[in-house]
Amino acid sequence: MSLIVQKFGGTSVANAEKIFNVANIITRSYQEGNDVVVVVSAQGDMTDQLIEKASEINLEASKREMDVLLSSGEQISIALLAIAIEKLGYPVVSLLGWQGGVMTSSTYGSARISRIDPGRIKKELDKKNIVIVAGFQGLNQYYDVTTLGRGGSDTSAVAIAVALNADLCQIYTDVEGIYTADPRKVDTAIKLDAISYDEMLELATLGAQVLNNRAVEIAKKHNIELEVLSSFVDVPGTIVKEVANVENLLISGVAKDDNIAKISITGIPDVHGWAFRIFSKLSARDVNVDTILQSIIRDGKRDVFFTVSQDRVHEAIDALSKYCKSIEGAELSFDENVSKVSIVGAGMQTHAGIAAKMFECLYTARIDVQMVATSEIKVSVLIDQKDSDEAVRNIHNTFFNTIA
Amino acid sequence: MSLIVQKFGGTSVANAEKIFNVANIITRSYQEGNDVVVVVSAQGDMTDQLIEKASEINLEASKREMDVLLSSGEQISIALLAIAIEKLGYPVVSLLGWQGGVMTSSTYGSARISRIDPGRIKKELDKKNIVIVAGFQGLNQYYDVTTLGRGGSDTSAVAIAVALNADLCQIYTDVEGIYTADPRKVDTAIKLDAISYDEMLELATLGAQVLNNRAVEIAKKHNIELEVLSSFVDVPGTIVKEVANVENLLISGVAKDDNIAKISITGIPDVHGWAFRIFSKLSARDVNVDTILQSIIRDGKRDVFFTVSQDRVHEAIDALSKYCKSIEGAELSFDENVSKVSIVGAGMQTHAGIAAKMFECLYTARIDVQMVATSEIKVSVLIDQKDSDEAVRNIHNTFFNTIA
Repeated sequence: MSLIVQKFGGTSVANAEKIFNVANIITRSYQEGNDVVVVVSAQGDMTDQLIEKASEINLEASKREMDVLLSSGEQISIALLAIAIEKLGYPVVSLLGWQGGVMTSSTYGSARISRIDPGRIKKELDKKNIVIVAGFQGLNQYYDVTTLGRGGSDTSAVAIAVALNADLCQIYTDVEGIYTADPRKVDTAIKLDAISYDEMLELATLGAQVLNNRAVEIAKKHNIELEVLSSFVDVPGTIVKEVANVENLLISGVAKDDNIAKISITGIPDVHGWAFRIFSKLSARDVNVDTILQSIIRDGKRDVFFTVSQDRVHEAIDALSKYCKSIEGAELSFDENVSKVSIVGAGMQTHAGIAAKMFECLYTARIDVQMVATSEIKVSVLIDQKDSDEAVRNIHNTFFNTIA
Repeated sequence: MSLIVQKFGGTSVANAEKIFNVANIITRSYQEGNDVVVVVSAQGDMTDQLIEKASEINLEASKREMDVLLSSGEQISIALLAIAIEKLGYPVVSLLGWQGGVMTSSTYGSARISRIDPGRIKKELDKKNIVIVAGFQGLNQYYDVTTLGRGGSDTSAVAIAVALNADLCQIYTDVEGIYTADPRKVDTAIKLDAISYDEMLELATLGAQVLNNRAVEIAKKHNIELEVLSSFVDVPGTIVKEVANVENLLISGVAKDDNIAKISITGIPDVHGWAFRIFSKLSARDVNVDTILQSIIRDGKRDVFFTVSQDRVHEAIDALSKYCKSIEGAELSFDENVSKVSIVGAGMQTHAGIAAKMFECLYTARIDVQMVATSEIKVSVLIDQKDSDEAVRNIHNTFFNTIA
C-alpha cells in the first residue's frame, strides 16, 4: 500500500463529464489499496471569470480581497469532485487550503507555502477517506486566505506530498508527459520516460510550462518522485526524479521562450560601478534579469545587452531611462521580437561538443544567434522570434534524428 | 456614534451596479461616523447556479459537501462588495463566516448558530475598517464549513448584532418594509412604521417572507432593534421592536400561506392513545403539524384534520398509511388546494370582536372556512386556495378601509 498525492489542473475538472473522469482515476488508485490525497485547481476558466467579475467593479482591487474572491474557485471544484466520488460510492472528504493545513507567507496573490500542518489530512486518511484538498490557496499568519499565484496547485500538491512523506506525487495534466520539444510544434517530439529534477527545472524555466518550477524545487529538495501524466489518456507519464535514465539521449529537450525582450544600452563609459548602477535599479523595481552580454571596451566605452521577461520590459525601460539620459552618448533601446531557444540535458556534463552541434545547426539554417548563455546542463541562444519555431524543429531533428 | 449591522440579500448585490448601490449605502453610514458591520448573502441566483452544477453530478450529494460548495457563493459576494468599497476609497475588510467567528451546530445544510466569537470583527472595527461578513455560513465543532439554510443571512446579521451589542440591525431587502398585506396582491396595503417582535414572528410564520423567523426570535430574546428597509428606495423602513406603536391599528397585517396541505383521517375508533399514535409517527419523520381540528365522537368514532406544509405532505401520508390501513373503517386523504389566511395584531389582546369581524367578512364574500386556529395575537382560517387572494383583499379592506 502506498500514499499517493494526485494533482488535477483546471482543464481536467472543467465540466461534469471531466469531473467523473477524474473521479474514476482517483477511485481506481484507492481501490488498488492506496491512500489517496487529491489536490485540485479551479474549474477551467473559473479563475478568469472571477477576475472578469472583479474588473467590472474595480481594476485596482486589493490583492487581499482578490484572494478571497479567487479562492472560491477551488472551493467549488473540491466540492464538485467530492460529490462525484460520493456518487461512485467511495468515502471522501473535501478540505479547503486552511483545513488541509496549508500555511503561507502573508504576500497576497503570490504567497509561498511556509509549512503544511497535515494533522487533519492524516486524520481523514486514517478514517479511510479519499481526501480532496483545494490547491492554489492557504492561510497566512493573520488568518487570512491567500493564493499562491498561477500554477500554485502544483506547489500545493508537492508540499503536501512532502508533509505526508508520500511515495509518489502524480501531476495530471492535458499532455501525456514531458516531451523533448513542444509536440504541438515539433512532429517528432518524443515523450520522455524519465527526467532529472535539474533538467526539469531548466525546461520549466525555459518555457515548457508543464510543471510549476517551485513545485520541482520542493520535490528535488525533499526527493519526492513526481510523475507528469495525462488525465485523458491512460498511459504512463514522465517520472521526474533525482537521477533519471535518459536512454542515452544527449539532451532531454528543446524549449522555447517567446515571453522575452532584449534591452540594449550602448556607449557606457568604462567607469567603476556601471553594472551595479544598472542592475540595482532593475532589482529595486523587481525586474529579473536573465542573460547578460557585454561588449569589449572600445574607445573607453562598452555596450551591454540583457534580457528580461516581456511583461516587465516597460518597467525596466522606465527604471533605466533617467540614468541613461544622464550619460552622454549612452543609448537605451529594447527589442521584443526575440526568443530564447534552449537545449537541456544532464548528458552535456559528460559529452563535449553539444553546444557546437547546436550552433552548427543554427548556422546551417541561416539563423543568427544574438546572445548565448550556458549552464552545466543547458545552452540557450537568443534569436529573432520569427525564426524560433524553425530553430526548435531543426535543433530537435539534429539531436533526435536517430530516434524519431 | 453608533454600531450598526447592515444585512443585504442576494438581489441587492446581483450585479456590479447593484453592488455599488449597496456600497454607497454602507459608506454613507460609515461617513456619518458609525461603526458598520455588513452581512451579505450570495449574489442573486448564485446559490441556484451552484445547486444546478451539483445536480448534474450527484442528486444525492452529502450535505457536508453541498455546504462547501454553497458557501462559496457568499465568499464571492463579500469580496466583490469589499472591492467596490475600496473603489469608493474607504477602508474595508471582508471576512468569511469562520473568520467572523460564526460558530454553529454540526447539522450541515441547516446549522444553527451556537455562538459568535466577535474578536476578529472587533479588531477590524478598532482599525476603523468597514467589516463585511459572509452571511448564511459558519464553522462547526469539526472545523467544517456549515450553512444555515435559506434565509440564514438574516440570522447571521442579528446574531452578530447581538454579539457586538449593536445599536441597530438593518435588514435591507427589495421591499420598503413590512406591509399590512402583500403589496403585490393588495393595492391598499400600508407600510407599517413599526411592529412588535411577536407580531413579526406571527407574520413571518404565516407566509410574509420578509424576515427569517429565527432572526426575529434572536432579536426579541436580546432586544436588538431591527429595521426592515429597501436597498433601492431611500425611505425609512419598518422598525421591529419589543412594543411597537401601531397607530391605533387593530391589526398589523393580513398574511397568506399557500404552502400548506390538509390531511384528513376519518372513522378513528375512540380508543385511548389515538392522538399519540398519529402525531408521534409524524414527529418521527420530522413533519411539523400546524392546526389540528377533531370532530365530536359519533357512533364511537371520530374524524381528525390537521395541516402540514405542502412539501412535507407525501412524507406525512407515507408515515400514516400503514397505521390507517390497520384500522377498520379509517380513511386517510389529503388536500393541497388549501390556504391559510391570518390576521395578526397585538391589538387583539385588548379589542374584542376582531375574529368575528374577520368571519363576517368571509361570510359576506361567500368563502367557506374549513378550520380555525387562534393565538393571543393571531386568527388563522383554512380556506380553499382559489379564494385566498380574494379573502386577503376583503379582510384587508375590512380592517384598513378607514385608512386606505
